[in-house]
Amino acid sequence: MNQVEKQVLDSIDVDGMLEYICELISIKSLTGDEAEAQANVAAKMKSLGMKVDKWILDLEKLREHPDFSMEVNRTEGIGVVGIMGEYTGGKSLILNGHIDVVHAGDEANWEHPPWEGTIDSGKVYGRGSTDMKGGLACALYAAKAIKDAGVKLKGKLIIESVVGEEDGGVGALAAVLRGYQADGAVIMEPTELKIAPAQAGALCFKIKVHGHSAHACVREEGVSALEKFIPIFNALLELEKTRNERVDDPLYSNFKLPIPLNMGKVESGNWPSTVPESLLLEGRYGVAVGEDIEAAKQEFLDALEEVIEADPWLKEHRPDMEWWGGQFKPANIPVDDPIVKTVESAFKDTTGSAPVFEGVTYGSDMRHLVNVGDTPTVLFGPGDVRYSHRPNEFVPVDELVTTVKTLALIILRFCGY
Amino acid sequence: MNQVEKQVLDSIDVDGMLEYICELISIKSLTGDEAEAQANVAAKMKSLGMKVDKWILDLEKLREHPDFSMEVNRTEGIGVVGIMGEYTGGKSLILNGHIDVVHAGDEANWEHPPWEGTIDSGKVYGRGSTDMKGGLACALYAAKAIKDAGVKLKGKLIIESVVGEEDGGVGALAAVLRGYQADGAVIMEPTELKIAPAQAGALCFKIKVHGHSAHACVREEGVSALEKFIPIFNALLELEKTRNERVDDPLYSNFKLPIPLNMGKVESGNWPSTVPESLLLEGRYGVAVGEDIEAAKQEFLDALEEVIEADPWLKEHRPDMEWWGGQFKPANIPVDDPIVKTVESAFKDTTGSAPVFEGVTYGSDMRHLVNVGDTPTVLFGPGDVRYSHRPNEFVPVDELVTTVKTLALIILRFCGY
Repeated sequence: MNQVEKQVLDSIDVDGMLEYICELISIKSLTGDEAEAQANVAAKMKSLGMKVDKWILDLEKLREHPDFSMEVNRTEGIGVVGIMGEYTGGKSLILNGHIDVVHAGDEANWEHPPWEGTIDSGKVYGRGSTDMKGGLACALYAAKAIKDAGVKLKGKLIIESVVGEEDGGVGALAAVLRGYQADGAVIMEPTELKIAPAQAGALCFKIKVHGHSAHACVREEGVSALEKFIPIFNALLELEKTRNERVDDPLYSNFKLPIPLNMGKVESGNWPSTVPESLLLEGRYGVAVGEDIEAAKQEFLDALEEVIEADPWLKEHRPDMEWWGGQFKPANIPVDDPIVKTVESAFKDTTGSAPVFEGVTYGSDMRHLVNVGDTPTVLFGPGDVRYSHRPNEFVPVDELVTTVKTLALIILRFCGY
Repeated sequence: MNQVEKQVLDSIDVDGMLEYICELISIKSLTGDEAEAQANVAAKMKSLGMKVDKWILDLEKLREHPDFSMEVNRTEGIGVVGIMGEYTGGKSLILNGHIDVVHAGDEANWEHPPWEGTIDSGKVYGRGSTDMKGGLACALYAAKAIKDAGVKLKGKLIIESVVGEEDGGVGALAAVLRGYQADGAVIMEPTELKIAPAQAGALCFKIKVHGHSAHACVREEGVSALEKFIPIFNALLELEKTRNERVDDPLYSNFKLPIPLNMGKVESGNWPSTVPESLLLEGRYGVAVGEDIEAAKQEFLDALEEVIEADPWLKEHRPDMEWWGGQFKPANIPVDDPIVKTVESAFKDTTGSAPVFEGVTYGSDMRHLVNVGDTPTVLFGPGDVRYSHRPNEFVPVDELVTTVKTLALIILRFCGY
């Protein structure tokens, strides 16, 4: 680590950063409702002397893009990008974070309030703390440290605050289509400080199974949709097994199910004494890194078709199947890409330890940056995805500190100064 | 058929009866909300010169009775009984009908409005037409014909309009406990004009299966409640098969499943990308005529226990099981009981055909009259239970006419005059 790097690390305002994370948590930026939070981030970028690009997403046009997917009924989306650096020869770098968060669920299950950042025993609690307002704040405070240390970047640093990651990534797609591409990118999703040059895919689906209603007292005259669902359940479980046995990517060797097929929600029937006339299954289908998306879909449909063909009722009353909601394609980049190497060296110098390389099993905006924007991208950020999307979400303060330091070094080394 | 009987049948006011059925349908007497309809029936009974007993149910006391069961959150219940006859030597007869009806569901699925009686092509449409305002009106108009013909009954005729049949029969239980017992009874439930001296039991239940939630991307770290439900589903299906193979009652020889086990409602999980942490099953468990209720319950619990014992997760995280809501015990009387014989002869003389004898597979208030009130009871009424509890419920006019005539003869022959 040279003198400039040390000076920048010394300039990091950790207390200010923690305070800012709490400020962001207190703005309830549910997917589809991020305007206030985006205005806040844009103001923060301005205060760092960044050139700010804030625009209204052209949702109608975005809908036509083959990589578009969305679940919420969004009426508005705002893009916010801050730019720093002179662009006098260095490489360009994107640091990307999403500002939208998922619902808090039953707030009674939270020990600390979801819509208020709370720092307690070395952790920041609140909805979005780890997924991923913490990581986004780290990027902003890494840029702040560079400014505060008086360092001028050669390459362009682009910090993106995007909307709608949770339901398909419309914000990241919009930023790519607005022209934000770079020589490398880091998305500060919670990776437990592991470096993830690969992201599995996840395709959400719905299946509706049809039965025939009857009063329970003449159950024999009805057809239970629940009963007709059982072979579909078994077939999908078997499909998951077969597909996961095929995955031999060393980046996923720690996972028993690198590409899980999750049957997450089932609703059937409406009365104990009535034969259920339909069943609705909602789930998500994992797709392996490098796997052809259309082939993966076909494999799913084939497994379903086999069940249908084997059952005269299902053959006559075909279940409805649709790919619905988040359609996260997989993405990956070579492990020796310059951005990977830069993150590795920065992490080593920050922590004194070698990083762990591991793919993630969840979908993220990485696919838009890599697949559409042609920008080599890694995921690297504080916290654990296991604690996101549930009560008492938190991010450890020490991981925030490691992240902001590592990001500062990444910026300096990748963009030059 | 003698002169008096002919005179009574000639006095039947079919048009008035159809009009009255429509009037009753237009009063939305959902289970738990029957006050207006009960007031209407009480007034009708008064207009027939009946002595009317109208009282408020002592719900707290009823709750303590071992045969009490209820689903709705009832704040009030009203009993209405009309009495005709001199009690000068004849036998006493109860004609029982429930005034409460089930919800209409999505009214868009109704071709005729549910809360308005419509007569079209020989059928009366509307919620409650067959289950069982039609049957109740037949009893009232049979009594009216006797009055209009100037016939004085020797025995006591007791017409009961009861509440809360649909969710456990609190109204019929209350009438029994108020002292209304008789030498015989007819309940005008829809039997398609068959004579049913037997009623199977039906016990509603809930099972909650526990899993362990996790993000779909680490599905392997969660335990799907849906997955843990599958062996329970299979075991209950198998239990149904075994139990039904044992039923050899000739009154049920037309049914493949005389005692169905219906799994009517399943809800599990709340998000495609989350492992479902619980599953709630609601169903109803058929119990055979003559079967010991506690032994039947134990057989169910044993089947469940076998699944639990075989699965370490379920053993550690035992599903919650409760008998909840309607608990309809079975009931039956000898097929040569005087009330059965009287219904048989009256039906023959009305229609010129021999009646069909068949047990019903649904629960009804019969159990309270027989098991608690010690009153030999048959079910006999117009319409088909298959068209109850669903959109476009109807009762055929010709079956209403047969029923009112048959009931008039039953009254004359059973009570004497």
